[in-house]
Amino acid sequence: MIAGRPAPLCVLGTGLIGGSLLRAAAAAGWEAFGYNRSATAAGADGFEVGADLPAVLRRAAAADALVVLAVPMPALDAVLAQVAVHAPGCALTDVVSVKAPVAAAVRAHGLAARFVGGHPMAGTAESGWAATDAALFRGAAWAVTVDDGTDPVVWRRVARLALDCGARVVPATAAEHDAAVARISHLPHVLAEALAQAGAAGGALALGLAAGSFRDGTRVAGTAPDLVRAICEPNATALRAVLDETLEVLAVARRALDDGSLATLAEAGHAARRRYEEQQPETISGIVPGAAGWLDDLRAAGRRGAVLTAID
Amino acid sequence: MIAGRPAPLCVLGTGLIGGSLLRAAAAAGWEAFGYNRSATAAGADGFEVGADLPAVLRRAAAADALVVLAVPMPALDAVLAQVAVHAPGCALTDVVSVKAPVAAAVRAHGLAARFVGGHPMAGTAESGWAATDAALFRGAAWAVTVDDGTDPVVWRRVARLALDCGARVVPATAAEHDAAVARISHLPHVLAEALAQAGAAGGALALGLAAGSFRDGTRVAGTAPDLVRAICEPNATALRAVLDETLEVLAVARRALDDGSLATLAEAGHAARRRYEEQQPETISGIVPGAAGWLDDLRAAGRRGAVLTAID
Repeated sequence: MIAGRPAPLCVLGTGLIGGSLLRAAAAAGWEAFGYNRSATAAGADGFEVGADLPAVLRRAAAADALVVLAVPMPALDAVLAQVAVHAPGCALTDVVSVKAPVAAAVRAHGLAARFVGGHPMAGTAESGWAATDAALFRGAAWAVTVDDGTDPVVWRRVARLALDCGARVVPATAAEHDAAVARISHLPHVLAEALAQAGAAGGALALGLAAGSFRDGTRVAGTAPDLVRAICEPNATALRAVLDETLEVLAVARRALDDGSLATLAEAGHAARRRYEEQQPETISGIVPGAAGWLDDLRAAGRRGAVLTAID
Repeated sequence: MIAGRPAPLCVLGTGLIGGSLLRAAAAAGWEAFGYNRSATAAGADGFEVGADLPAVLRRAAAADALVVLAVPMPALDAVLAQVAVHAPGCALTDVVSVKAPVAAAVRAHGLAARFVGGHPMAGTAESGWAATDAALFRGAAWAVTVDDGTDPVVWRRVARLALDCGARVVPATAAEHDAAVARISHLPHVLAEALAQAGAAGGALALGLAAGSFRDGTRVAGTAPDLVRAICEPNATALRAVLDETLEVLAVARRALDDGSLATLAEAGHAARRRYEEQQPETISGIVPGAAGWLDDLRAAGRRGAVLTAID
């Protein structure tokens, strides 16, 4: 990697996230190319996206590219098998939602040594190349994993990619990440699906009276069911735990409603929302990837809600 | 009431909803004045808002004004007692959330004959005169009750007020309205409060990773707890029923997660959200308030999701 000029980027899968990454990285000056299983309008838009995965991976290997796994979880295994054959020495990251299952798949293909997991917290209900947007990651959190054995050189390259796309880097272990997203991404999907059903069960009158609280509370139920499943199901264990916790909160609220009161629920919920609104992330500085204790230091910073906003 | 020029409007309570109504009606050409318990900036903004409730009500009685109850539920009884003394003959409506308890309070004060309930489905997390907005009701649904014994002359005046404020009129009985808003307004509050707690329980890391689904799913948890209670608690019976229904949907989803699948929940939730997005309200026409069967006809139309967008 030449200072000031990052090595090329190779994005495998150019749907909403992968395609937006291709656009964002190119806009930031990266030489970026990719692979997609089916033809897209990427070529017409000036991007090199091939459908021949071995050929794309051989190019990545020759250029020492950073390879990004951006295919849906069900397609991951087949793609990793090709990476192991054609580009086993490349630095490797991913933008798939859940981190522990991706890390396990990477390990199963013997690619763990050069892998650092990633997850940009951005998206829309749209999908495919047509929905891609170079600005999708601007201002977003981008989790980058800090599990034991992480290669500091790869970590730095992945963090730089996230920063170049306009995101801030949130360091977390795969397990911490998966537990967190169960709370702030997968549970919101589950509750939105249930709320949408409760509204529709009230018929045309109820849906006709629905305003902002219903519209916002059910927005993510507009996501295609297959995509919701692909996001949430690989994290079923963590999701079960937080759903049980929430069912207990709701059961307590239900009992309090027997006395006509929502006081406890409303006060605790409001305090929690305020905590979310008021969180001011501390900026991480002075932690050098590869220096003694760097992974422990990054983990501790991530748990405090600290973010990395620049890297040498 | 002179054709083309509505009789005056008297708004009791000039918080977010009442104050916005005062602004919207004045902008639409109504002579509008009001009462507020405490001093506000309404006067400085050119509105006649007095703090002497009996005096305001005597003016309303002398002008045959349409009186609007716009105080929070806990203050309603004291205001109704004054209406019964000083303006018992005035046409009366309200903009308080829940309809059956308001109707019962109105009945208890002997004011039922000239009362038609109303509920504009609009609001923000803000409150007070400073948050008022003449455009608040534009495009909103505004429920107007059609219970047995409704006076067609008053109904027409209330419907005209809603239409003049830019809303569409949704006819519903008080009980139907209350069951519907439990689904599309009060349950969204309950789920948002629970979701906010689940996120905050994940600490700074989870809140730092939170993006659109959590932000939107918890938005109404930003409402002051006292206001959430004032909105939801008077409708506890209907809210309990729909919360039980939703807890059962979530319990079924939880069991399906033991097998790692969210298929049933995601498909039903997505279908419900699509139904909400795609509902195209039919326009009510040809129903004349006071004609034979008009209340039955309006009730049937409301159940089909139909709306009134104009009245003679």
